[in-house]
Amino acid sequence: MAERTPLLPLLRTYVERDSTVAAQVLEAMSVPDAQEVMNLMPPSVAAKIVPHLQVSFAAALLQTATPELIKAVLKKLDAKRVVSLLAQLNVEDRERIVPHLTDQLRFELKEQLEYPEDSIGRIMTRQFLSFHQDTKVQDVTRKLRLLAKKQPPASYVYVVGEADRLVGVLNMYGLLLASPEQPIHDLMRSEIFALDGFTSQEEAAAELARRKYFAVPVVDGQGHILGIVRGQDLMQELQQDVSEDLLRMVGVDTDERPFSPISFSLRKRLPWLHVNLVTAFMAAAVIAMFEGLIAKITVLAVFLPVVAGQGGNAGAQSLAIVMRGLVMREIPSHRRKQLVLKETVLGATNGAVTGLVTGILAWLLYGNPTLGLVVGLGMLVNLLFAGMAGASIPLIMKSLRLDPAQCASIILTTVTDVIGFLAFLGFALLFRNQLM
Amino acid sequence: MAERTPLLPLLRTYVERDSTVAAQVLEAMSVPDAQEVMNLMPPSVAAKIVPHLQVSFAAALLQTATPELIKAVLKKLDAKRVVSLLAQLNVEDRERIVPHLTDQLRFELKEQLEYPEDSIGRIMTRQFLSFHQDTKVQDVTRKLRLLAKKQPPASYVYVVGEADRLVGVLNMYGLLLASPEQPIHDLMRSEIFALDGFTSQEEAAAELARRKYFAVPVVDGQGHILGIVRGQDLMQELQQDVSEDLLRMVGVDTDERPFSPISFSLRKRLPWLHVNLVTAFMAAAVIAMFEGLIAKITVLAVFLPVVAGQGGNAGAQSLAIVMRGLVMREIPSHRRKQLVLKETVLGATNGAVTGLVTGILAWLLYGNPTLGLVVGLGMLVNLLFAGMAGASIPLIMKSLRLDPAQCASIILTTVTDVIGFLAFLGFALLFRNQLM
Repeated sequence: MAERTPLLPLLRTYVERDSTVAAQVLEAMSVPDAQEVMNLMPPSVAAKIVPHLQVSFAAALLQTATPELIKAVLKKLDAKRVVSLLAQLNVEDRERIVPHLTDQLRFELKEQLEYPEDSIGRIMTRQFLSFHQDTKVQDVTRKLRLLAKKQPPASYVYVVGEADRLVGVLNMYGLLLASPEQPIHDLMRSEIFALDGFTSQEEAAAELARRKYFAVPVVDGQGHILGIVRGQDLMQELQQDVSEDLLRMVGVDTDERPFSPISFSLRKRLPWLHVNLVTAFMAAAVIAMFEGLIAKITVLAVFLPVVAGQGGNAGAQSLAIVMRGLVMREIPSHRRKQLVLKETVLGATNGAVTGLVTGILAWLLYGNPTLGLVVGLGMLVNLLFAGMAGASIPLIMKSLRLDPAQCASIILTTVTDVIGFLAFLGFALLFRNQLM
Repeated sequence: MAERTPLLPLLRTYVERDSTVAAQVLEAMSVPDAQEVMNLMPPSVAAKIVPHLQVSFAAALLQTATPELIKAVLKKLDAKRVVSLLAQLNVEDRERIVPHLTDQLRFELKEQLEYPEDSIGRIMTRQFLSFHQDTKVQDVTRKLRLLAKKQPPASYVYVVGEADRLVGVLNMYGLLLASPEQPIHDLMRSEIFALDGFTSQEEAAAELARRKYFAVPVVDGQGHILGIVRGQDLMQELQQDVSEDLLRMVGVDTDERPFSPISFSLRKRLPWLHVNLVTAFMAAAVIAMFEGLIAKITVLAVFLPVVAGQGGNAGAQSLAIVMRGLVMREIPSHRRKQLVLKETVLGATNGAVTGLVTGILAWLLYGNPTLGLVVGLGMLVNLLFAGMAGASIPLIMKSLRLDPAQCASIILTTVTDVIGFLAFLGFALLFRNQLM
């Protein structure tokens, strides 16, 4: 294949110098175009680009990859990357890749898959250095020198004691400045911060950011070190995770990307639009209940979107604050009730203020003070429930161990539409004699 | 103050062992309670907690801090932290803090403030190690040993050449394994990846995550190294930044936190609710235009929320995909038009499918095929515009150099409400003879 274009030697140099540039260029292409480019390059060059691609894009490219390319790619990836890659593929494509796995990778994969999906167990690396606490600095250095060709440069060395339990951590800086005869026990920091493999990636990221660490050891229940999680790996996950909430809230699949093919987007979005349709019909049913009243007092129809829209926005404010609070871990579980109460009071207060404004406007526009009263009261009730619902939905989802973001905004709109119409048209029914 | 409670020695031990725990406990308290706790502790202990607090919370606590505490806190912070802290304070509180700054900090602050708000210049640290390329490994080690007491352990050493320009980078690992007589020029990696201080934090985070680096040098136009940005610092910024989009989209101030006082939240949210009110009245005005028609055909009122709600959700899907694409840097500027076109086509297709479903349902429910046609056509037109608006709003905002998230969802709802009502009621007017 290499003879097909004279540009290849140049391209190879560029890819080898900085494969992230190639990754960015490829990601801006459509999948078929990028697949073609990948297949035109020698497998060893193309494989260098894959670790820098976003996982979903890499998975898409591998669907048409030759066995040579697959083999070359697998050489460049560690277990955690392979797991996320396989997770993105359908069964057939997965079966094309699995036979090329090395035994070592296969074993690591099995271990990795025992951890839940968003846990650090899934993204930890098993490439770490550990030494017994009695080892002398010079022996560590000698060992590191031997390993240097095989392993990428590390920043920490982990120290284990009796029964291979993690007892300390040592950075290269400390090692560099120590005298050769010292046992590493004397140099290590023994206050270790470690996490277990089931810790969520969000939690680990928050801890690393707070403590200003760039890697943290992962230990089992007995304190044995299993691997390390690095900040730079978490960062990518984090950037994806946090922004995925936004997608899930409105019913978009997290695999969808700006330039996904239309057929893919349709398949992913249409089901949620139909869920939304069911909820929209619920709101319509409420209006239908009051059809007779609206026939007599048509102006009520005019104020329907004002009451419902305001509730929707106020609810979305509460939802956003709580969703972000959950991501940033600012909401201890014993204070959840207090938060819902606060948002409810806030909603009621916002409802009272904007209800008053809207009521006065309605009165002025239509010369009917009762219309103003009905609109204002409807808004007050709706915003009270909007605040309550906006705060409760993600908290309830979380305590049910569901994804707090999943279609939260669709559920919220249902609540604010249904309650808004019920309250507004209910008050209108109550005061119908003064309205006509 | 220390004698006021016998618990202090114990507390001091705990805070010194792990001040992040104290930070988390304080953050779960109300501001006045946390202020009281801070003032009860000896300043030197309380100051240890501050670097681990979220900046907005730290700023709130410092409002009632004694001069001793302020002095102690400033000793613990570097220039970039002080900048973000000062940015959160009002003028008076700032003036209470500024006199306590050391000259060095004052100089660094001035430099830091020359960079735009979301740039890495604002969060880079000036604590880095650089050596001339001819320095021998043993001299570097000797120098590091001297500095070890003053500086926190580093992971990289930067290498400068002629005119003090950055020419390479060297990790401690390489230094540890090198022979003492070698000049560092022979060891260094000379393909350096550097950023300038004006690079946005989001872009830098994306680059670090992609390249799996945990720190990157910041250089000026002549290639002189000015500082370094570390991944763990970016991570915190990143986590805040991405989730702040969610808040700005619905009109919530990014300083608001789950347990902010109600008065604060009211002050921040009410203005946006009034913006939303204006837009809701625009939608109401559209309905008012068709009031006569609705008086004759009341069933139209029933389908108003179905058409508008569906448009709102479809538009929010497009908005979410584009917002996330901007954050993840997946949208090259030359492909923006293509993206808007794609989302428009997608919206129209979604509109055709759900319009057909809704049309048939409306026909079956009310036995009137024309009602079905009108609802279906309204939905088609609304979802077409919803897709277009959802994709364009953040892109237009970005090209106007405005915040793409700011009240994007309020603008979008206006578009989908106004266009939805116009299209649906417009078609109803067109077919009014068959509808009655």
